Amino acid sequence: MTGPALIALDWGTTSLRAYLLADDGRILDRRQAKAGILQIEGGRFHATLETLIAAWQTAHGRLPLITSGMIGSRQGWVEAPYLACPASLDGLAARLVVVPLGDGGRLHVVPGLAVEGDLPDVMRGEETELVGLGAMQDGGLYVLPGTHSKWVLAQGGRIEGFKTYMTGEIFAVLKDHSILGRLMSEGPADEAAFLKGVDVGLEADDRLGGLLHAVFSARTLPLMDRLPATSVAPYLSGILIGAEIQAGRSAHGDRTATLVGGGPLVDLYALAMQRAGLAFTSTPADAAARGLFIIAGAAGLMGR
Amino acid sequence: MTGPALIALDWGTTSLRAYLLADDGRILDRRQAKAGILQIEGGRFHATLETLIAAWQTAHGRLPLITSGMIGSRQGWVEAPYLACPASLDGLAARLVVVPLGDGGRLHVVPGLAVEGDLPDVMRGEETELVGLGAMQDGGLYVLPGTHSKWVLAQGGRIEGFKTYMTGEIFAVLKDHSILGRLMSEGPADEAAFLKGVDVGLEADDRLGGLLHAVFSARTLPLMDRLPATSVAPYLSGILIGAEIQAGRSAHGDRTATLVGGGPLVDLYALAMQRAGLAFTSTPADAAARGLFIIAGAAGLMGR
Repeated sequence: MTGPALIALDWGTTSLRAYLLADDGRILDRRQAKAGILQIEGGRFHATLETLIAAWQTAHGRLPLITSGMIGSRQGWVEAPYLACPASLDGLAARLVVVPLGDGGRLHVVPGLAVEGDLPDVMRGEETELVGLGAMQDGGLYVLPGTHSKWVLAQGGRIEGFKTYMTGEIFAVLKDHSILGRLMSEGPADEAAFLKGVDVGLEADDRLGGLLHAVFSARTLPLMDRLPATSVAPYLSGILIGAEIQAGRSAHGDRTATLVGGGPLVDLYALAMQRAGLAFTSTPADAAARGLFIIAGAAGLMGR
Repeated sequence: MTGPALIALDWGTTSLRAYLLADDGRILDRRQAKAGILQIEGGRFHATLETLIAAWQTAHGRLPLITSGMIGSRQGWVEAPYLACPASLDGLAARLVVVPLGDGGRLHVVPGLAVEGDLPDVMRGEETELVGLGAMQDGGLYVLPGTHSKWVLAQGGRIEGFKTYMTGEIFAVLKDHSILGRLMSEGPADEAAFLKGVDVGLEADDRLGGLLHAVFSARTLPLMDRLPATSVAPYLSGILIGAEIQAGRSAHGDRTATLVGGGPLVDLYALAMQRAGLAFTSTPADAAARGLFIIAGAAGLMGR
């Protein structure tokens, strides 16, 4: 049996997930806190971390610590400058930013990735999930649904580039703050309305007058009693996800994608990709923990 | 000299404009109140109207009354059912909805227009402006910037159809409620940043990964210190207006448009249309008053 070798932290905007990992990468224990960087006041990152992992440190002594996600942003604990794509595993490992913890311990922060160009792009945290999913070795197209979805292309041992789509956040602000929300009411999941929206989103640019026009049908259809109020939110979600998938298909063709993650939003993307006729595979859980383990290994943090 | 013949009311969501018109259509007097349908509580439409026009009624007796705009919506004084496109002047005049005022007077409410189909569309108030601008006689392509911009095609004495773009409202919700607003600060008008955005918007669908991706550059460019915080709002506005113009051009080609209205937003559309290489003409003021006069004439409301 192998012993504890690493504490890995997936530290994002709204949550902190900690993993105690063995030296073969197995997850020995895990803890979670609603301690994302937006919830931590007055820069109390160190105290938050100590509280979460105190029991592991008491039981196993001081272990190497590594983290990724928004904790490495300007609003986080320390800013870990973006690494430009194309980016390799060795590139990530060489650019870890070290935070001394005062007690002799050190926290290693994985940098995010950037794409330069006229429309630059950034990610923080997803690069670690991608490492954990084997993107560096296997290559391929990865789709990561979320508030800010990412479509990522990996090949030849590197993440070549990616694009962010504001799909989830635009849905949320339209639902909560625009006129489109006024004719919406909560209801059960409505797959038919969602898919009707997906069909519109897939064709919005080519045939239906563009996205700025297409979303207005989430007002006119209920106004004309052609869509029940409880179906408006899934319909609008479908339009936006359909438009994202159409944009991704324009960029990448019909190649099989890896659809990353689980939960209701990922299920919707799966439905929409099926509707678009795109093939995809699903992923195992805990990709971030696996990625942190691989990056820590590449950086030689364990077994020192 | 001709005498007062009509009281015309342009009654929208946020304002009420009243015109006293001569029997040749000249504006003899005008009044304005912040008495849009959203500001009027408890259905006090009649009292609001009486207060605004009392002086005219005292001086000139009871005159015919006509109105258009959101006052004819489900949330207004009375619902005037939409007239389906293609729609003529006679069609509008025949579908006026009458509200008896109790004192023998009657208010005539112009219906809005609707486009049926998979993505239906609606307007209220713009149809009257278009009549006032001569769209029924002259035909042509009309662009009406606003919270919900409209692109309208008229020919053969009828409004053939139109599309609404949620450009203005999407800009507002992204600015006020999304992550894009966090890196914005107020500044002087920045025409260069606006036009940089227009260039992105014009090419977003064809070359730049779609609108859901393009707008994210309003976060990444300031994050990378490539766009000052005071330039982010005009840049984002440019992307959205550029995308609208590209969608309009896809639908209508490079034909010369009539750009309706005045003020800072219309000035931005003029800049963006120039940037896109589209020709346009401008319009005189008070199109709504003129349109109400023409519709009242077609309906035989005056000189009875």
